Amino acid sequence: MNHHQPEMIDALYTWLPYSSCVKSNGATPRVIVAAMTDENGQDYVAPSERIAVFDNGGTLWIEQPIYTQATFALDRVKQLAPQHPEWKTTAPFQAALAGDMTGVAASGQKGLVEMLLATHTGMTAEQFSDTVTTWLAGARHPKFKRPYTELVYQPQLELLAYLREHGFKTFIVSGGGIEFMRPFTQRVYGVPPEQVVGSSVKTEFQMKDGKPVLVRIPEVNFIDDKAGKPVGIYEHIGRRPILAFGNSDSDMQMIQYTTAGEGRRLGLFLHHTDADREYAYDRKSHVGTLDKALDEADANGWILVDMKKDWKSVFPE
Amino acid sequence: MNHHQPEMIDALYTWLPYSSCVKSNGATPRVIVAAMTDENGQDYVAPSERIAVFDNGGTLWIEQPIYTQATFALDRVKQLAPQHPEWKTTAPFQAALAGDMTGVAASGQKGLVEMLLATHTGMTAEQFSDTVTTWLAGARHPKFKRPYTELVYQPQLELLAYLREHGFKTFIVSGGGIEFMRPFTQRVYGVPPEQVVGSSVKTEFQMKDGKPVLVRIPEVNFIDDKAGKPVGIYEHIGRRPILAFGNSDSDMQMIQYTTAGEGRRLGLFLHHTDADREYAYDRKSHVGTLDKALDEADANGWILVDMKKDWKSVFPE
Repeated sequence: MNHHQPEMIDALYTWLPYSSCVKSNGATPRVIVAAMTDENGQDYVAPSERIAVFDNGGTLWIEQPIYTQATFALDRVKQLAPQHPEWKTTAPFQAALAGDMTGVAASGQKGLVEMLLATHTGMTAEQFSDTVTTWLAGARHPKFKRPYTELVYQPQLELLAYLREHGFKTFIVSGGGIEFMRPFTQRVYGVPPEQVVGSSVKTEFQMKDGKPVLVRIPEVNFIDDKAGKPVGIYEHIGRRPILAFGNSDSDMQMIQYTTAGEGRRLGLFLHHTDADREYAYDRKSHVGTLDKALDEADANGWILVDMKKDWKSVFPE
Repeated sequence: MNHHQPEMIDALYTWLPYSSCVKSNGATPRVIVAAMTDENGQDYVAPSERIAVFDNGGTLWIEQPIYTQATFALDRVKQLAPQHPEWKTTAPFQAALAGDMTGVAASGQKGLVEMLLATHTGMTAEQFSDTVTTWLAGARHPKFKRPYTELVYQPQLELLAYLREHGFKTFIVSGGGIEFMRPFTQRVYGVPPEQVVGSSVKTEFQMKDGKPVLVRIPEVNFIDDKAGKPVGIYEHIGRRPILAFGNSDSDMQMIQYTTAGEGRRLGLFLHHTDADREYAYDRKSHVGTLDKALDEADANGWILVDMKKDWKSVFPE
């Protein structure tokens, strides 16, 4: 993937409609980044403090019709079923095997977590990473028939590259599994594994046949979502970002935390408004619900990026 | 602190005595790093994989006569005592207030954790960071009468700079508190907060007077020690280091994990042998115990750096 597209400046310019934004003083993201990196300006931020955080699902890549990681979990259930005959008669596995998504959803948070743990643990760190890489290479999105790693947003790739060119360190801060993302973030987004923050399971150091290994344990370690996002940022990054980009109410606390800091700050939400080129969803969506943040964006000076109006392109060619 | 000392190469050369090292094939760290970064050699490692991890206490800075963070906790107990009249009669606070270290130690792991939590939590992230910075500015080491941030090891500062000049990303992986280290690692070691891994307490996102804050909660979140070190590396860095430097049995698992990877690897232990210039301690020390690793170093190809013999200087001038 080319991170240095010639259209970059165009894509950033198309955000001009958001000039009504209060806190950003009518400026576009490009103007704000320019102010943050102008050594002689009052909004100057030292390079070491130029931390930018991005949500992943719905902000950097597609999250409809269901989270990509949920599709991965469902495929894993089918793959692992022969070793688990009991799944034929237990929720949510029974429903998952029958392709009954309503049935899977009916098992609630508890059932979903159980399914995630059963499909994401019980192997070494390396084995899990290989499993994700293999799955991503073969899986295709139901609507677009393309690999999920191609269903990333072109304007965001350009923004990530633009920020890095201006001395920013770019991080991903996602509710998704940290080890589900790390195998592809460098290749796809130019973000190295150590700059990925996400939800995680517990891991155990063990000696196996005289070799040290890390084994993934079926126990939740951290949920990097909602109020967990600023916590994840504190633990992993250790300082407050100056720019945060999300797309749902789950990103609100991260964006509140970012924009509440001293000096010039930038908080952005991607609003999915494009049913033709991608999907249109917000307040009532079962994934990526954007409701409260939509109401509060203006008063807080958060910029809403309208996919349909503001983006010339959605996915890379 | 100047990270680009002219003596750098000298300091690295003084490790030559360790040429008997099995796994490193008679090579010094400098020769190994040269091999790792030689694009045409068989030991070449891509820049993105050049991850080096360093323990902090006893590896980068002084840890005798007691861990610096323990001294900080004791000073905090005295400072906070007026708000805690009950401490006058409860262990381990009673002993701490009386300067009775044996009494503090007698309260065991449970008492020490209680003291750490009482002195490290109950405030916001920013407040804690400020407290550490203020304390470090005023505190003096009992033997050397210098600030702790000056009691860092000159050859290690040179090694960190040397590695970064060769495309390495340098991380700290310490049993110490992650937020106790972050306020000074950039300034002292050139290691930014996001490249520090350590033990931590739980944190909570809260809205206070309409402002989002992170509050430190009196509950242990993670112990980054012994078998916890490879786990901390996996969670924060997401890949296996190619170089690890420690000084005690607490670093063994981290160094095992590092050197067990594919290709050329480098594992090092600092052996404190210099009672004149610093301290001499290993198997029987109550801090930084180096016993098992001392026995197993040779067979595993880990390099033992002898402070007295191998280091021209210990602390920066």
